[in-house]
Amino acid sequence: MERIAIVTSGGDAPGMNACIRAVVRHGSAHDLQVFGVCRGYQGMIEGEIIPLGVRDVGNIIQRGGTILRSARCTAFREPEGREQAAARLRTAGIDGLVVCGGNGSMQAALQLSAHWDGGIVGVPASIDNDLSGTDTTIGFDTAVNTALEAIDRIRDTAESQQRAFLVEVMGRKSGAIAVSVALAGGAVGVLAPGLPQDLDALVSFLHSARAARRASNIIIVAEGDEAGGAFEVARALEAHMAMPIRVTVLGHIQRGGAPTAASRILGTRFGAAAVDTLRDGDGGVMVGIRGTEIVRVPLSEAVVEPPCVDAALARLIVGLAG
Amino acid sequence: MERIAIVTSGGDAPGMNACIRAVVRHGSAHDLQVFGVCRGYQGMIEGEIIPLGVRDVGNIIQRGGTILRSARCTAFREPEGREQAAARLRTAGIDGLVVCGGNGSMQAALQLSAHWDGGIVGVPASIDNDLSGTDTTIGFDTAVNTALEAIDRIRDTAESQQRAFLVEVMGRKSGAIAVSVALAGGAVGVLAPGLPQDLDALVSFLHSARAARRASNIIIVAEGDEAGGAFEVARALEAHMAMPIRVTVLGHIQRGGAPTAASRILGTRFGAAAVDTLRDGDGGVMVGIRGTEIVRVPLSEAVVEPPCVDAALARLIVGLAG
Amino acid sequence: MERIAIVTSGGDAPGMNACIRAVVRHGSAHDLQVFGVCRGYQGMIEGEIIPLGVRDVGNIIQRGGTILRSARCTAFREPEGREQAAARLRTAGIDGLVVCGGNGSMQAALQLSAHWDGGIVGVPASIDNDLSGTDTTIGFDTAVNTALEAIDRIRDTAESQQRAFLVEVMGRKSGAIAVSVALAGGAVGVLAPGLPQDLDALVSFLHSARAARRASNIIIVAEGDEAGGAFEVARALEAHMAMPIRVTVLGHIQRGGAPTAASRILGTRFGAAAVDTLRDGDGGVMVGIRGTEIVRVPLSEAVVEPPCVDAALARLIVGLAG
Amino acid sequence: MERIAIVTSGGDAPGMNACIRAVVRHGSAHDLQVFGVCRGYQGMIEGEIIPLGVRDVGNIIQRGGTILRSARCTAFREPEGREQAAARLRTAGIDGLVVCGGNGSMQAALQLSAHWDGGIVGVPASIDNDLSGTDTTIGFDTAVNTALEAIDRIRDTAESQQRAFLVEVMGRKSGAIAVSVALAGGAVGVLAPGLPQDLDALVSFLHSARAARRASNIIIVAEGDEAGGAFEVARALEAHMAMPIRVTVLGHIQRGGAPTAASRILGTRFGAAAVDTLRDGDGGVMVGIRGTEIVRVPLSEAVVEPPCVDAALARLIVGLAG
Repeated sequence: MERIAIVTSGGDAPGMNACIRAVVRHGSAHDLQVFGVCRGYQGMIEGEIIPLGVRDVGNIIQRGGTILRSARCTAFREPEGREQAAARLRTAGIDGLVVCGGNGSMQAALQLSAHWDGGIVGVPASIDNDLSGTDTTIGFDTAVNTALEAIDRIRDTAESQQRAFLVEVMGRKSGAIAVSVALAGGAVGVLAPGLPQDLDALVSFLHSARAARRASNIIIVAEGDEAGGAFEVARALEAHMAMPIRVTVLGHIQRGGAPTAASRILGTRFGAAAVDTLRDGDGGVMVGIRGTEIVRVPLSEAVVEPPCVDAALARLIVGLAG
Repeated sequence: MERIAIVTSGGDAPGMNACIRAVVRHGSAHDLQVFGVCRGYQGMIEGEIIPLGVRDVGNIIQRGGTILRSARCTAFREPEGREQAAARLRTAGIDGLVVCGGNGSMQAALQLSAHWDGGIVGVPASIDNDLSGTDTTIGFDTAVNTALEAIDRIRDTAESQQRAFLVEVMGRKSGAIAVSVALAGGAVGVLAPGLPQDLDALVSFLHSARAARRASNIIIVAEGDEAGGAFEVARALEAHMAMPIRVTVLGHIQRGGAPTAASRILGTRFGAAAVDTLRDGDGGVMVGIRGTEIVRVPLSEAVVEPPCVDAALARLIVGLAG
Repeated sequence: MERIAIVTSGGDAPGMNACIRAVVRHGSAHDLQVFGVCRGYQGMIEGEIIPLGVRDVGNIIQRGGTILRSARCTAFREPEGREQAAARLRTAGIDGLVVCGGNGSMQAALQLSAHWDGGIVGVPASIDNDLSGTDTTIGFDTAVNTALEAIDRIRDTAESQQRAFLVEVMGRKSGAIAVSVALAGGAVGVLAPGLPQDLDALVSFLHSARAARRASNIIIVAEGDEAGGAFEVARALEAHMAMPIRVTVLGHIQRGGAPTAASRILGTRFGAAAVDTLRDGDGGVMVGIRGTEIVRVPLSEAVVEPPCVDAALARLIVGLAG
Repeated sequence: MERIAIVTSGGDAPGMNACIRAVVRHGSAHDLQVFGVCRGYQGMIEGEIIPLGVRDVGNIIQRGGTILRSARCTAFREPEGREQAAARLRTAGIDGLVVCGGNGSMQAALQLSAHWDGGIVGVPASIDNDLSGTDTTIGFDTAVNTALEAIDRIRDTAESQQRAFLVEVMGRKSGAIAVSVALAGGAVGVLAPGLPQDLDALVSFLHSARAARRASNIIIVAEGDEAGGAFEVARALEAHMAMPIRVTVLGHIQRGGAPTAASRILGTRFGAAAVDTLRDGDGGVMVGIRGTEIVRVPLSEAVVEPPCVDAALARLIVGLAG
């Protein structure tokens, strides 16, 4: 192993820069030449591969986004695109590749391995926490805290105006952000994929809350929820009670911002571990974390959709609504 | 003047609690009995008037919202409602009233003065900065900073994904938040009431920005903009260019959160000044700030819609877009 | 089990309020009467035991500190003090006690069990992460993030002025905060209990960094470090190089603030788990977390000093200094 | 006027980057060539003058510190140093110079004008708010808010532990930060240059606060206070009461961090106004703000020490302590 590259792919996640920094510096410290692939798989196909030195990654650990930029890439879905990407890596003399991204990026990494001989190591980075074999992903903790800050602000005005709020959070097919935010934000309910949809119970809770003059009632809705987005849920709730429900869709603010300590530490440890894995000649795996230990998981297992959110936690949220 | 009351009315604004604290403590220090009217004019009509002691307002200066709660009140629009409110104040033996709120609340205060003999002093508190006779209002600085934090987060992902974003901010009929956020956030354009709507110039800017691979392009849209909300503007822009425009509506998060230093200081100074004004027997005015000095403005002048946003500042934003 | 109480003890930690809320509401939902002991073991000795209802713990999940207050208590170190505390619990008819605090509080809980028959369950809450049998404690994640924000600010001015900074963080005998902050903050070195003290290597790093015009050099020092606090270390460093070293002692800001999502979720899950443990009749244990699972650990094992900080992580910090 | 330069000097202040961005882009938009002088007057003496294009200042408006870096420069205090700096500006063909800094930097700018014919325009940037002729300076609002966040955190633990805290804030000879922070933070007292030092009154307040079990008592001390720093004041207070007083020195964290909206807007408006002033041929002045209007002040008037802090505001703080 002499020349390795890192690519950040799919939706950007806070902490990706910490991972890039660790790959570059840990690789350099072990006498590897490190390169960056710009703009995800799109840049790989176009051969945008640049050398990265120790100084190029200074003062970035605290920045959201990714200095290598990212992009979603349709061309990579075709074998021709992947073949072209592999050819670019060969031309650049790359032996090992670190793919930093979410579920889709890991699936793409698996597909790339059919076209390219080098070692591939995945690093789970996604605000959605949508990979198996790891307790969590780079960026998830930051996204949850960003959403939580927003909830805290909304609670101030909800308390003052005695209103019910539906807040839609990100997560694509995963309800992980929704459940964490609901638990931490003191929400009275959460609607997310994989959880039982009990709008009736919610309606009856809101009725009794109003009767008891409970000040603020915040309900978290995952964007991927089967009941539809927050606006649809609001309409359904309003149909059952003469009470306006405010809706807030948090949107892209959940993706950016300075990463939390947890996201930076994860990015740093994963980045160094990915380099070590490549140096061990152990390709085709994703690094992950279990408790406090770094683990290696076959890419094929990592992309299995993780179990739906913990129903016990969801019940706890409702039980604590007071 | 022996017994005074404070009411917070309309949309809550961060810093209202600092004002309540100052009215209670400054009043008490000058041997006044201080009362709080709960839930705005609605609570006034219903006679929800409670005594407030020095300890009741401890540890609230840092909290968003209003401990007295607020509400929009339709009954107060009718003379009967106002008469009932005045009767409640008489029953409670109130001599002076501090009304803390935005433009609508000051108009209501003016109307109340036809029904009630006590002294009325307004305190401008509104995230919209929508009153004349004062440089700024309680809560405006906080709302601008909250929106700005959101813009900073969006910029991270916009940079990483090289995307254009339309961000809708609050402000009702006022473009004040939009212009401040655009200036502070390095936006490439701003659409707000009272500003010339030059979508063509925006389209041509975005075209050249894309040609030059300019990374992030953020445009701020005021909720009250004539061109319609952010979604309408996005559709209009997309019709002229083959490029997706992302939309984020910041919504109610702009209303809550711990107030900034400026909002707390303003709340504190205004609260104390309002008490002093009542003690001087100088009713029918709103306190305000001009530069660093507290001023008094007749309520009738305060409610005049302030001049539209500074077109020179809006031009500066576009000129600095780079 | 019919009547349970919760006490928060020792240094307060952000997330304690989430735990109090969960104990009260989860307990109430299972038909227990819940009480709060004010001001730690001091209040227990003085019999300050108050009933806590579901509404008493509303709108507190986002607040730092503890609504029950805390205190360090010297009287409890004597058997007479503990006997008195036990008598107070008997008088109040308490069957089960949840003790929320750090290492010292768990030791005190163990001692109390010799005087009192009720069930005792510990909840690890300490910014120092100083207990065995759990991956982490309530408040630790918040303290790390607070220190990290401070580091980010210092880095801005360090970069601008090209200066070296020593930043002292909390942690008493534990270097856990120091190592986490150094990893997440991109520090060039960390001095903490249990780590090898290599000032010479640090001096030589700073020399070469200056030669290379490396902009900012931040070194984290744990308050409990054997080399003495940050001021002593700075003097030692300055003796070896003609270069001023700035010192910042973060101090008590690390203890307060709105808890992070992780601290609130931990507080909530631990609180509910503590109630379940009492209901199971399983006293004399502390709840903890291993990976994503809640566990129960004998109190006697929990108070064993946890292993010193991970030397591999400390080496990683130095290796990534660039 | 064809070629202008900007230098940031003295202590860095958040918002300096917004000013650099505005000077470069507003200058470029008016067909000026813009240069940056690195590392303050030190870099000017050494001829570190680099061209700055529109793209060089992208994505910096949200960053603390200054991309041009700063330094304190002893050589500039001698005429030889200033002559050398002037020679460097002549060699680089600079016609106009924007000096962005605090009181010391403006004094240096005045001195430079004896050696150099070009136009000089000052921009007040200092966290200390230590210049006359302007309501405020770039960075002051950010520093106050940063200190305030720290106070809010300390209050959490002070409330929980029922302790008195002395918090030392920055400001050099100015008490401006101290008074603003005390007002906004609900402090019970403030000790700052130019204010009457009434330790006796403070002692008696703390005694009665303890008697009344007032939870938290926070006192703000300016670093430049005649009574000595916070540690000296604490010793003096402790000598009069059997009660420990905790001390926190906020230090350099007050200098960094993402600038607030107010600091960015001020930096932006001042930067553009400085360019306009140079284009008008109006050198020897500092731009400032009065209320909402930009003004121009002779440099000789700007450097006059501003009046000491408003004693009325200091009295208000004490009056509201409750």
